[in-house]
Amino acid sequence: MCDCAEETKGGKGLLMVFTGNGKGKTTAAIGLAMRAVGHGFRVCFIQFIKGSWRSGEQETMGRFRGRIDFHVMGRGFTWKSDDLEKDRRAARAAWDKAREAIFSGKYQMVILDEFTYLLSYKMVDRDEALGVFSKKPQGLHVVITGRDALPELVDMADLVTEMREVRHPYKNGIRAQKGIEY
Amino acid sequence: MCDCAEETKGGKGLLMVFTGNGKGKTTAAIGLAMRAVGHGFRVCFIQFIKGSWRSGEQETMGRFRGRIDFHVMGRGFTWKSDDLEKDRRAARAAWDKAREAIFSGKYQMVILDEFTYLLSYKMVDRDEALGVFSKKPQGLHVVITGRDALPELVDMADLVTEMREVRHPYKNGIRAQKGIEY
Repeated sequence: MCDCAEETKGGKGLLMVFTGNGKGKTTAAIGLAMRAVGHGFRVCFIQFIKGSWRSGEQETMGRFRGRIDFHVMGRGFTWKSDDLEKDRRAARAAWDKAREAIFSGKYQMVILDEFTYLLSYKMVDRDEALGVFSKKPQGLHVVITGRDALPELVDMADLVTEMREVRHPYKNGIRAQKGIEY
Repeated sequence: MCDCAEETKGGKGLLMVFTGNGKGKTTAAIGLAMRAVGHGFRVCFIQFIKGSWRSGEQETMGRFRGRIDFHVMGRGFTWKSDDLEKDRRAARAAWDKAREAIFSGKYQMVILDEFTYLLSYKMVDRDEALGVFSKKPQGLHVVITGRDALPELVDMADLVTEMREVRHPYKNGIRAQKGIEY
């Protein structure tokens, strides 16, 4: 993200996707939020997978109260609990929140962290979701993270980075690290 | 970065590399810095390419004064100016700063942003650099970003993510966006 370029006033907000099996998707979204806040943008960060964030992020986000609205939605880690109906309701509530944020006019950036899983597990209707993204307000940046982004979402997006795992510490027998993984 | 895992006390610090031609390398490093700070870590963030960061990052980093030491090193964007000797001296000074930070004992995380270019352009000796990384203090996390990471660096690293460009807005005729690109 180091291209030198002129500021675009009233520019088109981008639909951005960080996908792939590697580390760095959510982390890049956090970085984008920080960069946006540094420019005076207001950011809405919706976390769709409960338990995927830990104290590190929450403490950091807390410092930006009033600039970043941070919502933890969802019931559990995988959205594959033994109560499918409850999961669906939680997914629907989280998605309603996202849609509301996108059309609220309050934000310059809305981040849907780990959202792709809701489409993969068909917790949110694909056509409805793509419809919302295609109709997002002109100047709004929407950032979506998660593995296995749908091809239709990739096609629609302005910027897509696949975070590809080349080497992962767990495979070398190193356990998760505080301050890195969570 | 959403694996649930136990906290590792006194764990091995990781050598992490974000490489590839896609967006998100520096942004992920910023996100890691934020996460680390949220855990009370002290972070040293060294930017090797002058001009690659803009006001957004600097404003944000400024809020973490005392927790994140942020150094802008280097002379210009490409390290390929018309004065090679001056470039070499600037590269050497930046690398000295990095080495000092790594062995200072002051930090739990040292981030060398866009460092790979210094190896690619042979501004820093490869064997010397790899030697420093292999001897880094036990608990220290070192994060290196930039395109074209050397194979030897990838082999040595604990975690490597390749940010692969799938879709880029410039290719669609969209200009750089404030708060996103810079």
